[in-house]
Amino acid sequence: MSHVYPMFATPEEAENAFYQAIAHGDLLAMMNVWSDDEDILCIQPTGHRLQGTTAVRESWDSIFKKSPRIVIQINRSLRWTGMVIAVHNVFETVVVEDKQKQQELVLATNIFQRGARGWKMYSHHASIAAERNLIAQSEVGTDSVPRVLH
Amino acid sequence: MSHVYPMFATPEEAENAFYQAIAHGDLLAMMNVWSDDEDILCIQPTGHRLQGTTAVRESWDSIFKKSPRIVIQINRSLRWTGMVIAVHNVFETVVVEDKQKQQELVLATNIFQRGARGWKMYSHHASIAAERNLIAQSEVGTDSVPRVLH
Repeated sequence: MSHVYPMFATPEEAENAFYQAIAHGDLLAMMNVWSDDEDILCIQPTGHRLQGTTAVRESWDSIFKKSPRIVIQINRSLRWTGMVIAVHNVFETVVVEDKQKQQELVLATNIFQRGARGWKMYSHHASIAAERNLIAQSEVGTDSVPRVLH
Repeated sequence: MSHVYPMFATPEEAENAFYQAIAHGDLLAMMNVWSDDEDILCIQPTGHRLQGTTAVRESWDSIFKKSPRIVIQINRSLRWTGMVIAVHNVFETVVVEDKQKQQELVLATNIFQRGARGWKMYSHHASIAAERNLIAQSEVGTDSVPRVLH
């Protein structure tokens, strides 16, 4: 099967592709978001830390097989964009539609690196937010303005 | 009281000062590590997210008042150093000597930015590691080699 995966011109495009890959449970699209560097790092909200392409792939593969339907809504982004590195911090409202519908509020620090193949994800650190029980419906859809590192 | 706080020539110096400030419960030294930028972000292992100097200062002030003796041992660092941004990911073995001695294994993503006043901490995302119960004494003291972003 030949399929051309997109390059990302901005960290925002890479981040959108990351959350789209989760929404579609699409492992190939997910791995296309990540840098090929063996130092890539993914910390799941469970506290598991995966380092390197193989470990990161296996983790998402296992998540997609276990929970085919995950919807993540992003709120209150903070973005710092440099020449070759960009850092985003976001609140993720994660809805897992398993046997029952579960909702979690997760904090994620997403780090992107610009290389010859555009912006790629280098690190994703996710953890459960303390305000997990305080999700207000009014927050959904709000988002802050990106800014440029000086 | 006049006291001159150091500038940090490398992200490693800033990170060492961060963990030293915790070890000494020294709020002024802690705040000297942080950038003055109002976008600074600190996510504590409790899942609380503090944004901006005032919120970050209040959080550490409260921690230092509650737990005067915290010792953090850093292991298995991953370091990516660019021209103006550096990202470290570390395991923290956190020992809080309160009424009883508590130990936690924490994962932290530390982001530093280089400015006119040297390297400063921009973001600290800490969360409890899944392997919290698997701390092997043999790990203490080991650390990996830093590398440079290409």
